[in-house]
Amino acid sequence: MTIENTTTGWGLIGASTIASEYMIDAIRAQAGHDVVAVMSSSLERGKAYAQKNDIEQAYDSVEDLLNDPKVQAVYISTTNELHHDQVLAAAAAGKHVLCEKPLALDIESAKRMVKACEDAGVVMATNHHLRNAATHRKIKELVDGGAIGKPLFARVFHAVYLPPHLQGWRLDKPQAGGGVILDITVHDVDVLRFIFGAEPVEAISMSQSASMAQEGLEDGAMSVLRFDNGVLAQLHDAFTVKHAGHGIEIHGESGSIIGRNVMSQQPVGEIYLRDENGEQLVDLEPEGLYVRGVASFCAALKGDGQPSCTAQDGIRSLATALAVVESCKTGAAVAVPGVGEE
Amino acid sequence: MTIENTTTGWGLIGASTIASEYMIDAIRAQAGHDVVAVMSSSLERGKAYAQKNDIEQAYDSVEDLLNDPKVQAVYISTTNELHHDQVLAAAAAGKHVLCEKPLALDIESAKRMVKACEDAGVVMATNHHLRNAATHRKIKELVDGGAIGKPLFARVFHAVYLPPHLQGWRLDKPQAGGGVILDITVHDVDVLRFIFGAEPVEAISMSQSASMAQEGLEDGAMSVLRFDNGVLAQLHDAFTVKHAGHGIEIHGESGSIIGRNVMSQQPVGEIYLRDENGEQLVDLEPEGLYVRGVASFCAALKGDGQPSCTAQDGIRSLATALAVVESCKTGAAVAVPGVGEE
Repeated sequence: MTIENTTTGWGLIGASTIASEYMIDAIRAQAGHDVVAVMSSSLERGKAYAQKNDIEQAYDSVEDLLNDPKVQAVYISTTNELHHDQVLAAAAAGKHVLCEKPLALDIESAKRMVKACEDAGVVMATNHHLRNAATHRKIKELVDGGAIGKPLFARVFHAVYLPPHLQGWRLDKPQAGGGVILDITVHDVDVLRFIFGAEPVEAISMSQSASMAQEGLEDGAMSVLRFDNGVLAQLHDAFTVKHAGHGIEIHGESGSIIGRNVMSQQPVGEIYLRDENGEQLVDLEPEGLYVRGVASFCAALKGDGQPSCTAQDGIRSLATALAVVESCKTGAAVAVPGVGEE
Repeated sequence: MTIENTTTGWGLIGASTIASEYMIDAIRAQAGHDVVAVMSSSLERGKAYAQKNDIEQAYDSVEDLLNDPKVQAVYISTTNELHHDQVLAAAAAGKHVLCEKPLALDIESAKRMVKACEDAGVVMATNHHLRNAATHRKIKELVDGGAIGKPLFARVFHAVYLPPHLQGWRLDKPQAGGGVILDITVHDVDVLRFIFGAEPVEAISMSQSASMAQEGLEDGAMSVLRFDNGVLAQLHDAFTVKHAGHGIEIHGESGSIIGRNVMSQQPVGEIYLRDENGEQLVDLEPEGLYVRGVASFCAALKGDGQPSCTAQDGIRSLATALAVVESCKTGAAVAVPGVGEE
């Protein structure tokens, strides 16, 4: 056995901000894993990105990256309309796939992606980060343990200001899956599914195009979801407000959980439990959200469990986000379709 | 001129909890005003209530109370289905009317009530208390003064626990206008209309019957309203949660206003302003909400301005609450009808 054989090489499909800010470090934090290649449609951009991030190879085509024998897994963070063909190509090449959310722009495409990976025998996961947070895992633990009695309501506050360096396709490219619902609401859905172990069955929403979004896209949305455990959840997602803060609340018959500053990519935030005994700050052991997500993916590559957010989870969050988008357009409650795969 | 002529006598139609907890004191706080009579359908209850609250006369019919020459104004806090006939009778008797919310169970009834008072030349007002709070008046002042830039979103948190002594018709009498939407959502609507000086044009909502409400009534609702100034507002109203707290938030392009513990009948709560300079607690001068509302009504009796919450305001909040109820039933966005009177 040679040293090389013990390293799982990752290729980045997309020379993205999220990869350089979080994912490269998260992959390199795993023993035996390294980022060895990056693909950008601009070779010049790819080379600069590779150099800056100490990545061996830059390619300007997915095909070339997938042909690199050092690449055994790919992390896909291109714009959303590209995910489908890239996942199918990766599966065909026998590479494991960690894909950004939303998986695709329609459910049928997402299902094809998941089936292609299943058929190829490669691991596929969705990169929803929030369910990896110590905060949200603690909330789930409290809810499951009966700390608030029967859960009745959830509130998700995820109205933020889209940083200037991200004010691109999210604001003006419907064909790339822009808009706040596919960008942020989809995360809210995933974390609520995780906390409750329940599925959204119905969505209503109103959207706003206040100042930033163009081409018919929304830069704000207020939505309500009904889950199959009876919980009603209200979501507020926006790109346009600078000082709203962010958080999540779960209200039950005998208590409430208040999460402040927890809808973050970083391991931050506080959880308070309120019940008949008053309000108490809950102890947490923060760890990197993406590090934990990648760790579960890497364990799955060795046959040890499932990724913390599976490919099926990605279909579910997409299906719900698409129901929210449709409700904004039609003004009607939209049933969230089952994914038909379980 | 005799001493008697300087006193405006009030009759209470309904020997209610809200009257004994707030309104009798609020009326007696006004110079030249006193509560001189009470009507309860049970004379025994009426007499006990009169004795306890130092009220001269108890009646068991509206007609008898309205025939009392010492009564020049009435405060109506019976169950909602009774308001219509009682207001019409009061107007016919030439009595001024302060009526609890919701004014009625349908818009046409509410319009008839308002028109009857107009035709009779008596003052009519709606007893929405929140717009009289120092907290909400400060929020309006901040929004109007541009403290948060263009307002984009509002969130109203009004999910509380219905106290045991009020767990009656609100939970099991649809014909009396029970349910959390006509009881609480209607207040949210009024305070948002007040803060923004804008009208709701469209409503969506999902309701819940978790544990307390029966007979098809809801004990929880999550709603979204679109206002004619572009603001989206989300509302969470419930009777079923004990530790959710209550509050209101207004989020604008350049700042946010956070109101904590402000959806109260009492002069309590804090307002925070968040902007590029950080978060600051805003100075307030609390005063009794109902005292201030009654003071504006009494001033209007002397020709000095309008009641803080007019009869028209009551039609508007009812129209919006009814749109919310309808959306819960139909699953569709419901346009809020104009009241057609301005």
